[in-house]
Amino acid sequence: MDIGNMASILQAFRDGHVSLEEALNKLRILPYENLEFAKLDHHRSLRQGFAEVVFCEGKTIDQVVTIIKRLGEHSDNLLATRASQEMFNAVHELIPDAQYHVLPKLIVIERKCLPRDEERFILVITAGTSDIPVAEEAAVTAEIMGNLVKRVFDVGVAGIHRLFDQRSLIEQANVVVVVAGMEGALASVVGGMVAKPVIAVPTSVGYGASFGGLAALLSMLNSCAAGVGVVNIDNGFGAGRLASIINHMR
Amino acid sequence: MDIGNMASILQAFRDGHVSLEEALNKLRILPYENLEFAKLDHHRSLRQGFAEVVFCEGKTIDQVVTIIKRLGEHSDNLLATRASQEMFNAVHELIPDAQYHVLPKLIVIERKCLPRDEERFILVITAGTSDIPVAEEAAVTAEIMGNLVKRVFDVGVAGIHRLFDQRSLIEQANVVVVVAGMEGALASVVGGMVAKPVIAVPTSVGYGASFGGLAALLSMLNSCAAGVGVVNIDNGFGAGRLASIINHMR
Amino acid sequence: MDIGNMASILQAFRDGHVSLEEALNKLRILPYENLEFAKLDHHRSLRQGFAEVVFCEGKTIDQVVTIIKRLGEHSDNLLATRASQEMFNAVHELIPDAQYHVLPKLIVIERKCLPRDEERFILVITAGTSDIPVAEEAAVTAEIMGNLVKRVFDVGVAGIHRLFDQRSLIEQANVVVVVAGMEGALASVVGGMVAKPVIAVPTSVGYGASFGGLAALLSMLNSCAAGVGVVNIDNGFGAGRLASIINHMR
Amino acid sequence: MDIGNMASILQAFRDGHVSLEEALNKLRILPYENLEFAKLDHHRSLRQGFAEVVFCEGKTIDQVVTIIKRLGEHSDNLLATRASQEMFNAVHELIPDAQYHVLPKLIVIERKCLPRDEERFILVITAGTSDIPVAEEAAVTAEIMGNLVKRVFDVGVAGIHRLFDQRSLIEQANVVVVVAGMEGALASVVGGMVAKPVIAVPTSVGYGASFGGLAALLSMLNSCAAGVGVVNIDNGFGAGRLASIINHMR
Amino acid sequence: MDIGNMASILQAFRDGHVSLEEALNKLRILPYENLEFAKLDHHRSLRQGFAEVVFCEGKTIDQVVTIIKRLGEHSDNLLATRASQEMFNAVHELIPDAQYHVLPKLIVIERKCLPRDEERFILVITAGTSDIPVAEEAAVTAEIMGNLVKRVFDVGVAGIHRLFDQRSLIEQANVVVVVAGMEGALASVVGGMVAKPVIAVPTSVGYGASFGGLAALLSMLNSCAAGVGVVNIDNGFGAGRLASIINHMR
Amino acid sequence: MDIGNMASILQAFRDGHVSLEEALNKLRILPYENLEFAKLDHHRSLRQGFAEVVFCEGKTIDQVVTIIKRLGEHSDNLLATRASQEMFNAVHELIPDAQYHVLPKLIVIERKCLPRDEERFILVITAGTSDIPVAEEAAVTAEIMGNLVKRVFDVGVAGIHRLFDQRSLIEQANVVVVVAGMEGALASVVGGMVAKPVIAVPTSVGYGASFGGLAALLSMLNSCAAGVGVVNIDNGFGAGRLASIINHMR
Amino acid sequence: MDIGNMASILQAFRDGHVSLEEALNKLRILPYENLEFAKLDHHRSLRQGFAEVVFCEGKTIDQVVTIIKRLGEHSDNLLATRASQEMFNAVHELIPDAQYHVLPKLIVIERKCLPRDEERFILVITAGTSDIPVAEEAAVTAEIMGNLVKRVFDVGVAGIHRLFDQRSLIEQANVVVVVAGMEGALASVVGGMVAKPVIAVPTSVGYGASFGGLAALLSMLNSCAAGVGVVNIDNGFGAGRLASIINHMR
Amino acid sequence: MDIGNMASILQAFRDGHVSLEEALNKLRILPYENLEFAKLDHHRSLRQGFAEVVFCEGKTIDQVVTIIKRLGEHSDNLLATRASQEMFNAVHELIPDAQYHVLPKLIVIERKCLPRDEERFILVITAGTSDIPVAEEAAVTAEIMGNLVKRVFDVGVAGIHRLFDQRSLIEQANVVVVVAGMEGALASVVGGMVAKPVIAVPTSVGYGASFGGLAALLSMLNSCAAGVGVVNIDNGFGAGRLASIINHMR
Repeated sequence: MDIGNMASILQAFRDGHVSLEEALNKLRILPYENLEFAKLDHHRSLRQGFAEVVFCEGKTIDQVVTIIKRLGEHSDNLLATRASQEMFNAVHELIPDAQYHVLPKLIVIERKCLPRDEERFILVITAGTSDIPVAEEAAVTAEIMGNLVKRVFDVGVAGIHRLFDQRSLIEQANVVVVVAGMEGALASVVGGMVAKPVIAVPTSVGYGASFGGLAALLSMLNSCAAGVGVVNIDNGFGAGRLASIINHMR
Repeated sequence: MDIGNMASILQAFRDGHVSLEEALNKLRILPYENLEFAKLDHHRSLRQGFAEVVFCEGKTIDQVVTIIKRLGEHSDNLLATRASQEMFNAVHELIPDAQYHVLPKLIVIERKCLPRDEERFILVITAGTSDIPVAEEAAVTAEIMGNLVKRVFDVGVAGIHRLFDQRSLIEQANVVVVVAGMEGALASVVGGMVAKPVIAVPTSVGYGASFGGLAALLSMLNSCAAGVGVVNIDNGFGAGRLASIINHMR
Repeated sequence: MDIGNMASILQAFRDGHVSLEEALNKLRILPYENLEFAKLDHHRSLRQGFAEVVFCEGKTIDQVVTIIKRLGEHSDNLLATRASQEMFNAVHELIPDAQYHVLPKLIVIERKCLPRDEERFILVITAGTSDIPVAEEAAVTAEIMGNLVKRVFDVGVAGIHRLFDQRSLIEQANVVVVVAGMEGALASVVGGMVAKPVIAVPTSVGYGASFGGLAALLSMLNSCAAGVGVVNIDNGFGAGRLASIINHMR
Repeated sequence: MDIGNMASILQAFRDGHVSLEEALNKLRILPYENLEFAKLDHHRSLRQGFAEVVFCEGKTIDQVVTIIKRLGEHSDNLLATRASQEMFNAVHELIPDAQYHVLPKLIVIERKCLPRDEERFILVITAGTSDIPVAEEAAVTAEIMGNLVKRVFDVGVAGIHRLFDQRSLIEQANVVVVVAGMEGALASVVGGMVAKPVIAVPTSVGYGASFGGLAALLSMLNSCAAGVGVVNIDNGFGAGRLASIINHMR
Repeated sequence: MDIGNMASILQAFRDGHVSLEEALNKLRILPYENLEFAKLDHHRSLRQGFAEVVFCEGKTIDQVVTIIKRLGEHSDNLLATRASQEMFNAVHELIPDAQYHVLPKLIVIERKCLPRDEERFILVITAGTSDIPVAEEAAVTAEIMGNLVKRVFDVGVAGIHRLFDQRSLIEQANVVVVVAGMEGALASVVGGMVAKPVIAVPTSVGYGASFGGLAALLSMLNSCAAGVGVVNIDNGFGAGRLASIINHMR
Repeated sequence: MDIGNMASILQAFRDGHVSLEEALNKLRILPYENLEFAKLDHHRSLRQGFAEVVFCEGKTIDQVVTIIKRLGEHSDNLLATRASQEMFNAVHELIPDAQYHVLPKLIVIERKCLPRDEERFILVITAGTSDIPVAEEAAVTAEIMGNLVKRVFDVGVAGIHRLFDQRSLIEQANVVVVVAGMEGALASVVGGMVAKPVIAVPTSVGYGASFGGLAALLSMLNSCAAGVGVVNIDNGFGAGRLASIINHMR
Repeated sequence: MDIGNMASILQAFRDGHVSLEEALNKLRILPYENLEFAKLDHHRSLRQGFAEVVFCEGKTIDQVVTIIKRLGEHSDNLLATRASQEMFNAVHELIPDAQYHVLPKLIVIERKCLPRDEERFILVITAGTSDIPVAEEAAVTAEIMGNLVKRVFDVGVAGIHRLFDQRSLIEQANVVVVVAGMEGALASVVGGMVAKPVIAVPTSVGYGASFGGLAALLSMLNSCAAGVGVVNIDNGFGAGRLASIINHMR
Repeated sequence: MDIGNMASILQAFRDGHVSLEEALNKLRILPYENLEFAKLDHHRSLRQGFAEVVFCEGKTIDQVVTIIKRLGEHSDNLLATRASQEMFNAVHELIPDAQYHVLPKLIVIERKCLPRDEERFILVITAGTSDIPVAEEAAVTAEIMGNLVKRVFDVGVAGIHRLFDQRSLIEQANVVVVVAGMEGALASVVGGMVAKPVIAVPTSVGYGASFGGLAALLSMLNSCAAGVGVVNIDNGFGAGRLASIINHMR
């Protein structure tokens, strides 16, 4: 559409339907909707394969509702992250088919499931039970973007036989997302076990010198296993998105 | 008034109306009002073109009310930042023409608008919707100090066509204030686009390794674009003040 | 080989050729060579598709030479990172077909080029000229692991038209590695442009509040663009390795 | 030239001299020179009023020489920062009218002085003698960009009468650059004295808990005086550039 | 009493009233009262001139009440810091002459005022109104320990004439306590003005890059003025105690 | 049981009761129970002498109850740390003999006391009263794991005679756990007094530049006394566990 | 000797051979030798089982030589850490039986080997080859203090089969010292495998976001495996000393 | 002289010898000498009792020589800190009675010893031998400013009997300066022993998690002993200066 749009503008200019100045101006414009407090990037699903995802934190309830309503008019599927229960309630009144995932605090609208390749699944692993909310953010994100996702929770390295018991599942995965707080050692161990991409998500689970996830973050960045890419602390969405992009590669 | 005051003290001394000791003491005194818990700098509007601005955080409601009341007796226009709704309510009872801006938490008294040069406007840009409260603090600050302010919100670099669509507006601005959280990349991109001063305001929007705005702050300080000055995290007021000073230069 | 080995041990046990205790012990052993100061993981090329890569920093020259010599006896291709000129000289005496890349400080032995898919290339982009050594570490790593690599250097966001001029190349890439120091904004801008995985490598290029690459690292972790995975500061090798894994996915 | 270039491309397309595809491609290209290891932004002097400034740190001597040589062919005036004596020697052989400022480590080529408005000067102030190299980087940068610069060195707040003695000079300045290490208090005191923009440059002068300039940086960012913009630690160039932009505003 | 006690133990041993073993054991014991959850150092007023001060934070209400009750039986005067209103209420029921200072959250029992030298006063200065709670903690601490304390609040360096107006008072002080948040520059300016000891107290007043008082702390530690000693962030008590010790020196 | 289990699998394979593939799979499996959201390591009491300890923070109440219920079916004794009162209430309904320690927030089930060696006790020392909750976490942990524990609270170095009065008790201890916040100096002093292992637990007690326990942590890591091992901030459980392991050594 | 000394002083006092004042003074004195620039703690071998260990960093060569010479006159065995080759050379001239360990930079004098219990050995494990210098500091320290030490080097978690191959050795160890840089995950994995005390030593091996060992340090402090005590970064000596103390427990 | 000067200016103005404008200007001027690169504060010895002290770090040798030469013409006694041997050599050629203290890197000129009160001495204590250079900076500073200084070195808390052996000396001191690196615990222990002011100087002695003195700094700021003031890391000069000011109080 972008390139097509530029072409039609050029054509209109050659045909004399638009002036030089108009053409110059239009050529720089790509489609988005301006709500003043937000610029909705309707172009994104064309450019990146999925509609703009709404990051709700720091927005007012009114802003969230308005943005989701407008985006929902252009997209079958929609994702809003870090949404409070109050935000969902307000959205739900307007959009009855919106769903809320409590632990990961996600609002999901899924009217037309994207196709999934059952042969290639993403595996989301957590070190502990407390890491599940972040892991679910990753998993649900990847699912709505058209991926089969499997989950293995609570296989931290302190009882490493639990991890190794899942070895064949881990080795079959196409992409592995490792979610871990505290010292985040799971990423390195998994990274050494597989030949597939590993996306590491440090979580803020822990206390004291975990400094809100800093320990796990640094640990994962310094992983002695190659092939590990790291996202922000607690950023399950980013991990799910990146895993989905990789999983769709052919 | 300062210099005039010194001159009249000297004259009174030459004329023998004040003693040597009195003259020495008075020469060191400039006008301010002492409330004990605060020293009101009535001299500031002479020295810097706008009355002392009240920073409300950490003050009691009584202190805020008393300070605003006294300053209001000497100034037509007044600004109080980081004011809670409770503080405003108490001020409003005494000063009915005081107004409250909810998002940026500003109390504003504007009885005599300062003149604005419509040719020279300040542009306030945000990367996201969540950055608007800080942006509004900057914008309202600049407006009450006598500037035309235009706003462009939610044009972060992840969908950079939204930014480039605003290119001509950005290029026309006399001063640009860039407000961004997360990684704050918008400041560098805008800084590379314009030949005017850019004031960058990191915000605490983000999570995890944003560490309360530290990521955006460091990013802006290390901007590869020259011509960018940075203020404190979430310091919309400071950015608006500095933009106003620059915008008034002739 | 691993599974085969386990099977033959089990068979030998069933046949009574090895005792219960021996079988138990052998079952836990996978092939590696013990030099005492190092355990060479000859198993890795089977497990992860490329021989163990030698990290030379902190090792003595003798250790580096011995390790490379032994690994070279089992592998056609070999990579040693962070190698000093002195280390290379010592290696070169023993292994005349070893090559040295000065800027990225890599020792490379490539006797049997791995097949490359010319349709799918990895693009390595830098923000500045000073980021080239890290970028070359990524590029050479990916090349020896069997990838076509293209390079675009010095397209930082302060002159963003240089970047956009490379737009079609960027959009054609299968995986993009973004190497940037200072504020690292390039990762976010590129991340918003493409629908392919972006691997961000912060570099220690910069000064003052870049704090040895911390500014770029935090910036990249907080990228407002989804689909960005981050590796350690200056870790060109890790980025090249991860890009290669992703680029080989079918 | 940029807009003109776009217009002529459009015209050539309307006239049928270039195909649709060619026009689309050319429209995205702005003038720069590709040295592979660097992309020279010859466009910058048109866009921002001064040729691209070369940041030498982390570049090889050959790279620096080549870049300066090429840029010098398009510009009368040129600035290269953080250049070692060796770099200058190599440059000097090729370009005999290049000059070297030892303390700020600047290479300067100034063939055609830009006009200076003698009425509006930039004042560069330092807290101590050890801050002079950074201050000179700011001052020389501003001078070559067409500004009258005055200097006041070693007026830190521990002997505040030295500062107040310069009061009238400070008050006459159009823009003030404050360069200070240690606790950087000078920026706040000067910021409270003037009604003009203050650009604060923290320096790495100090020891112990100055942590390489961090103390001064945080101090300046938290200045209780409004109207202060901060640049990176030791970033004299950035301060000089920003001061020049502001000083040229009319 | 300590030495006296040791002497009497020795004498009792020489006289054969205590055995060798008993003497050895007793010689290591100095007077304190063991409440199990606390060891009350009744010896402290002998050793350091004032009874043990109770730090209430992190203690239960019961613990606070018990400790104050027991200490109060041995001392005329008592100080408890960081006490909540609830703690005070519980104490007040048992000890009706206990008083509560709301802003600094101090519980004070003062039955027998210590003598004060009216010639030598401690001056407590704050940069802003929000610093007053910490300043009062310092002032009240010094007062109950037998010092005349004068207060000057809200004389931050952004309006430095307010500070200089207090010059003679500052110069007359025997010890100066400077309490400041944000950038903490006041400590350096005052440190350069006086020849008396300056105790600097950084406060957590500020936001963003003040990082809970870190900016002011680093600033004060790096003060370019000699003769400044720094205490912990918000540690008004420590400053008051140190000021009192110094002020009592003859 | 682990080794025994492996042996019986091997035997079953030799006897032809299980296939090669089955044997391979079973050999990698060790006993644990899979609740999906948690993998209960029933194997741990065999491997490490005590059942898996439940870390409750970040888990839902339902998860905590289910985990404790299942673990309780396999173990006589059980420990759950960082449990809220609400968690305990829910557990208590199902398991009436569960007990709650309010200060350290521990849920304890102790049906069959482990034997204690009365000759070898662990000594838990705190610097202040506010450190008691962490100290109790350590003490109760060690007690349920079969150790005699003695406690000495509030013997910080500011009144060092209180510490020295406990000298003989300290010297008799088999292992010493030192719990201290603020500057954590107690660990160094105790470390210099004894020839037994000292486990240092920094606590988050303090304010300002204690930065949530960082000051005590760094202090303990840098202890000038050898023989000190440090655990995470506020990690009483870890200290108690380590002390117990050491105390059981023969 | 300490207690004996006190007893004889008391006896001399009872017998009237020393005055009250003399007795008081002597009772506070324990044996050490005063070199002015150092106080040699000859008492330490009595108090803690091994002579004072000399930390050479920051001392002049003369100071090191003098200290070692004096200590050597009172002890058969001696250890000096962080000694440069120059220091050793100077020591060696005076004390020909002194030995130098190059990698760990230790000076060792061992004239009378302490008895070793061959049944109980300390195992020192490293994640990589580059960690060996720190590991050797730990191992040699433990050896001279009378322990059998075994070494397993280069078994980091990226190739975890190398670690598991050493499983039985690890399980037989009485104390395990884990030395690892980068992300330090080895400590957690080993901690989960054994029921014996684990002493974790983070090393400064790594680069970028390892921040001089900070990543490994935080990782180890946050270990999800209980029973791990941590010492300072690169502190092989401390780990060896603590391991020795634990290994001698009966 | 300051006040006298102001009086004579006023008198000259009353007498008509100077104009109003001249009087206004002169009233703001206090005596200093302007070398352009430095402003020498000849006024300081009047204002603060000792001539300006030269901080040599970051200055060129020429600058140091010039400054010392000029200051030396106005003062009998002079101190220059952080001076290299080269700086001293250059100074020594011009000023033969200048002396150099190698360890603390001080240049001292002492032509007329200031009177010392032998009754009141400052005690400088170090934890280790490696802290002596910083301690000597403090001691020599205090001596030249007219104080009797006593030294006690190497009495760290790991062998606390060495410290207690000095108890009476410590108790007799008028001011105590405690110099310690590593964990800096000595400050707290000494602070609890005395009723006199304690000035704590953290040093950068240590390694690993001492982070250049940060551990000792935080430790001292969080001291559980009241009455401790802290100066910057390695700032022996600041401690000596503050100790001198306090010691001269009457």
